[in-house]
Parts: sequence; C-alpha cells; structure tokens
Amino acid sequence: MKEIMAIIRMNMVNRTKEAIAKEGYPGITCRRVFGRGKKKLEDTLTEEILQGEVEVCHILGETLSENHRLLPKRLITLMVKDADVSRIVETIIDVNQTGNFGDGKIFVLPLDEVIRIRTGELGEEAI
Amino acid sequence: MKEIMAIIRMNMVNRTKEAIAKEGYPGITCRRVFGRGKKKLEDTLTEEILQGEVEVCHILGETLSENHRLLPKRLITLMVKDADVSRIVETIIDVNQTGNFGDGKIFVLPLDEVIRIRTGELGEEAI
Amino acid sequence: MKEIMAIIRMNMVNRTKEAIAKEGYPGITCRRVFGRGKKKLEDTLTEEILQGEVEVCHILGETLSENHRLLPKRLITLMVKDADVSRIVETIIDVNQTGNFGDGKIFVLPLDEVIRIRTGELGEEAI
Repeated sequence: MKEIMAIIRMNMVNRTKEAIAKEGYPGITCRRVFGRGKKKLEDTLTEEILQGEVEVCHILGETLSENHRLLPKRLITLMVKDADVSRIVETIIDVNQTGNFGDGKIFVLPLDEVIRIRTGELGEEAI
Repeated sequence: MKEIMAIIRMNMVNRTKEAIAKEGYPGITCRRVFGRGKKKLEDTLTEEILQGEVEVCHILGETLSENHRLLPKRLITLMVKDADVSRIVETIIDVNQTGNFGDGKIFVLPLDEVIRIRTGELGEEAI
Repeated sequence: MKEIMAIIRMNMVNRTKEAIAKEGYPGITCRRVFGRGKKKLEDTLTEEILQGEVEVCHILGETLSENHRLLPKRLITLMVKDADVSRIVETIIDVNQTGNFGDGKIFVLPLDEVIRIRTGELGEEAI
C-alpha cells in the first residue's frame, strides 16, 4: 500500500478528483498549499514547484524573502493498493500535464498498515 | 519507529487523546478534516470513510460533486516506538469502535529517524 | 529520497529557510502547529515538544485538558536526495539549537518516488 500525494494547479482539483474516482478511488483529500518559484540553473524561467502551506505564515506576518514568490496550489492525497499505484499516477499525469511550468509534482510514500476501526479489517481490505 | 495517523469522529478527540496519553504518548496532533461518503458495491449504505482537509477548497468555492457528501472528521497523528505500535492501535480502536459506519481508519507509516534538536539525541530516545 | 519534517520555534522560520536554501533546497513548506508541554520524569521542567495542528480544534471549542499547555510552533517540510539528508539535518540543528527546551524535533521519513508532472521525470531528477 502507498500514500500518493500530488501538488497540482488550483483549477485542476475537480477534474483530477473525477478521474481518480473513475479509477476506483472516490475518496481523495484536498488541502490548500502555496508554491514558490525556483530559478533553474540552466535557464531563467521560473518553475512553480510547490512546496506547502506557507500562507498561514504569511498571515502571521512572517513575510518570505522577495525571491520566494508564492502561488496558490492544491495538495491532494489518497491511499492506494500497490497494484494501483502506477495507474493512479498515470491518471494524475494525464489530467494535469500541460507541458507548462507549474504542472506540479507527485510523491509516492510507503504505507505500512491500514485498519478500518469499525470492523478491525486490515491492509488492502481496509483501504 | 512509526507514524500513526487516525481519522476519527469529531466528538472522539478528547477521549482518544486521554486514552493515548495514559499509554505514554501525551503529545498527539489534531487536525480538522472532512470525510466523504462512499457507496459500497454490495449494499446501499453510506460508509463515511474520511478523506481529508477538503473544507478549505469548499470555502474557496471549489464545490465538490453532489455524490461526494462530506462530513467533518478529525485526524490525529503521533510518532511511536515500534514496540508500542500495536498497543496504541488497539487503544484507538477500543475508544472509537462503535460498530457503525464512520468509525474511521488508522494508518501506520514508516519513520526512519527522529532527532531532538536541543540535545542531538537520535531515534527512540528522541520520541 | 527522504521527506524531512522539522518542528521549530516560530521565530526561527526565516533563518532556517535561508540556511536550507543555501544548501540547495530553496523550496520548503511551512505550517502553523501548536506544541504541548511534556513533564519529564526526571525533572519538573517543561519540554515544549511540538505535536501538531491542534489550534483548529481549539477554535472549534474542543478545549484540551489544562495539563496540555500548547505553544505555537512551526512545522517545515522538504523532500531531499539521500546524499543530502544528513547535511540538511545538520543545517537545521545548527540554526535551531539553543540548548533550551523547545528547540524542536526533526523527523526523517522514507519517500519512494517523485514524479515531475510536466516532464514525467522520475526520482531525484524530479526533486
């Protein structure tokens, strides 16, 4: 079992959610995050890789340096069976790949165990 | 060492927190999340598995499709020693298992290292 | 590849961010979290280990017991290459170690895969 986290554009949440639901995972998580611009060494383009929920720090007056431009993004999360990881990753890419900077990133993290509290079911049965 | 994440009912946070504290882990994390209904294939009951912090998206006007009913849940997180994982999981089940849909889920994730910044202590000593 | 999470003092975010950027990771994540006091068995000092985003529960009226004093903290997160883990951990310690209770903790979690959606790049190339 794996945890899949994807940072995508704000306006891609619904399309991504619907595509993943069609693949058998209707229950995704969505969080508001803010991304930052990263100057690439080999060119001067700005790549909007995302990196998290920094907006709260902003609200609190912890301003970030000027060269750390932030853009609103969305972080979606879901837990999937091993056999479905590559299919779900491909689904997320299909929906979100425009070829422009800012398309986002996908992270795959290990997940040791899942337990459904109501029944005590374990593992992939509990996803 | 493991990271234990549990999605539970809103009104179960205090009881769960107290039970886990009695087992030696007073410091849990709590986040507000929203769950969605999942129609099971074999019946028409709605299972309220949780899936995340979607309410922020709602606030921003990113309405979700009608068949994705959301219910407020709580996500608690704590880091535990390997030897304590099954005891803490059982504690969470004991407090939260009503037998009704919506009891929630527990996720166990691997944790490679913990460092206490003040002392430089590593591993289980630093939990 | 690893996910590094660090809980640090509120007023250490900018210094930490700048130090990590100098080490080649300009894109960190920052979230507001609340820490709790933990009485140590061997003394009566209060150690401010952090444990999460409980403030939302507070806002909602889910008051925590009196012996669970909470202090505002910040949680920063970044994804790093295996070869850079110890250097980044040391950087975070260097900036944040005052020797006083409340310096915070660092967690290192496994990360199986990273995919850049725009190009389809995998692994460390996509970080």
